[in-house]
Amino acid sequence: MSSLVVGSIALDTVETPYGRVEEALGGTAVYFSIAASVFTDVKIVGVVGHDFPDGHVTALERRGCDLEGLQRQEGRTFRWVGSYDENMNVAHTLDTQLNVFESFRPELPLSYRRSRTLFLGNIDPELQLDVLEQTSAPTITALDTMNFWIERKREALEEVVRRVDVVLVNEEEARQFAGVYHIAEAARRIRAYGPHSVVIKRGEYGAVMFTDDCYFALPAFPSDEVRDTTGAGDSFAGGFLGYLDTVDTIDSRELRCALAFGTVMASFTVENFSILGLQEAILPQIESRYEALRELTAIEPARVRLAAVQKGA
Amino acid sequence: MSSLVVGSIALDTVETPYGRVEEALGGTAVYFSIAASVFTDVKIVGVVGHDFPDGHVTALERRGCDLEGLQRQEGRTFRWVGSYDENMNVAHTLDTQLNVFESFRPELPLSYRRSRTLFLGNIDPELQLDVLEQTSAPTITALDTMNFWIERKREALEEVVRRVDVVLVNEEEARQFAGVYHIAEAARRIRAYGPHSVVIKRGEYGAVMFTDDCYFALPAFPSDEVRDTTGAGDSFAGGFLGYLDTVDTIDSRELRCALAFGTVMASFTVENFSILGLQEAILPQIESRYEALRELTAIEPARVRLAAVQKGA
Repeated sequence: MSSLVVGSIALDTVETPYGRVEEALGGTAVYFSIAASVFTDVKIVGVVGHDFPDGHVTALERRGCDLEGLQRQEGRTFRWVGSYDENMNVAHTLDTQLNVFESFRPELPLSYRRSRTLFLGNIDPELQLDVLEQTSAPTITALDTMNFWIERKREALEEVVRRVDVVLVNEEEARQFAGVYHIAEAARRIRAYGPHSVVIKRGEYGAVMFTDDCYFALPAFPSDEVRDTTGAGDSFAGGFLGYLDTVDTIDSRELRCALAFGTVMASFTVENFSILGLQEAILPQIESRYEALRELTAIEPARVRLAAVQKGA
Repeated sequence: MSSLVVGSIALDTVETPYGRVEEALGGTAVYFSIAASVFTDVKIVGVVGHDFPDGHVTALERRGCDLEGLQRQEGRTFRWVGSYDENMNVAHTLDTQLNVFESFRPELPLSYRRSRTLFLGNIDPELQLDVLEQTSAPTITALDTMNFWIERKREALEEVVRRVDVVLVNEEEARQFAGVYHIAEAARRIRAYGPHSVVIKRGEYGAVMFTDDCYFALPAFPSDEVRDTTGAGDSFAGGFLGYLDTVDTIDSRELRCALAFGTVMASFTVENFSILGLQEAILPQIESRYEALRELTAIEPARVRLAAVQKGA
């Protein structure tokens, strides 16, 4: 079993009301890998420049990540500069330098091609297709995307959506792609392309999932302090797919557990800058937050409760 | 047992992408009463003008509502004109005519004073205090408010907050009153005034509750169509307090059930204009939505699931 991720590897400069980091380790593939590596082996496909610090490579190796698919190109590593105000749901991009990421062409080593789960991070949908072509029938494939691709590469994106099992996007992306505001209707339209499940991330409002036979909703884990939400969605994806990689049969029950593990992994990420919160999370803490999440959403049966009700309608 | 509500009784003209109603029955006291009357006897304190249609009075009487505290004044009934675009979380007020509501002074009939639960709808906090003075120790009191009072009657509002058990407001109001964005911190600051519970309504994102020993979160019920969200919050309050009025001991378990019943009652309201959806909801449907809400938030225990996990961190 292993989980394959393709996506950005970045040096992030981020400022929030709680502090600032400069050129810290970030990017989709990084957050995904650190979260998923709690559950399973992770194989990374990505690109870095000649300036990518060795320490960051070591950080990924320590998680047991397979870096055979990590390309090191001449040029500078992808950089993102952003800030958040108190409303941590919205990132303000101040600067994006694609650098080596601009000409990135994912190439899967032979040993990667039989991975059981595949996460197509937010990159050009043509590259996502290319990665799909290089794999041999993963049990579950998921994609993320963004407004840029929805607007400019609609056709290629639709083709990837047709071919994945799970679309895992934020609320605005789901609405934009589906062309409708009502979120259940947006999910219905996305599922009509083919995916059996649509997972919609809502930041501090948690996540909802629409799948063949159920709708499922989870609040975000109530972190005491939210310092930096960068990478929350990718950590969510890592928990979600990393967990599913360990499961024999993927059904709606397991998809729910996966959604909860995604929620838990994202909660560690937002509590500190860069990967600091996430990489410190150990299994007992993860399990304990999972249990807390169950508890804070549990309701007593209605039959018991309504027995006390004196009046009918 | 009975549940007492003080609040507006209105003729609402509302336009949404799904239709329009003119001078339809609305207002806090109305939505609250129709929702709460599923569970318990409701006593209404409010005011209408000479133009208030008899049919609306009959609609409330049919729910068994006690109207002894309903004042009928010379002048026109309170009117609100508003619209919603596809984002039903935000109402755009086009016109407000306070009319008889402007000089409203709540007066509780003697028979009202021993009500077990009390809901202070969104009115001038000085009037909320006045109502509190006229009651004899209800088991549970809750208040709603709005930005207007937070800005202009802060001192009086703080005094009411000190004296109620539950503050039941929307997210922006909680943040504005507490002066902080992070919602758990906002709730902590509000609870520091005295209330044992803070219930925060988040529209399509559901509701969260902070109480002595727990945090609890619920998504909104996934209605197939959301046509008009006017009155959703007051219907929520009606389900919440109406249910609590039937309960022997109010503890965090019962507060959770109440939150779920509030969520269910709000879901009926948003599915149609004015009180149409709410007044058609009968007990079996309410019970069935409560069960569905339990189901769509239930997660399997982690211990079982994590047994499958091969790797530690």
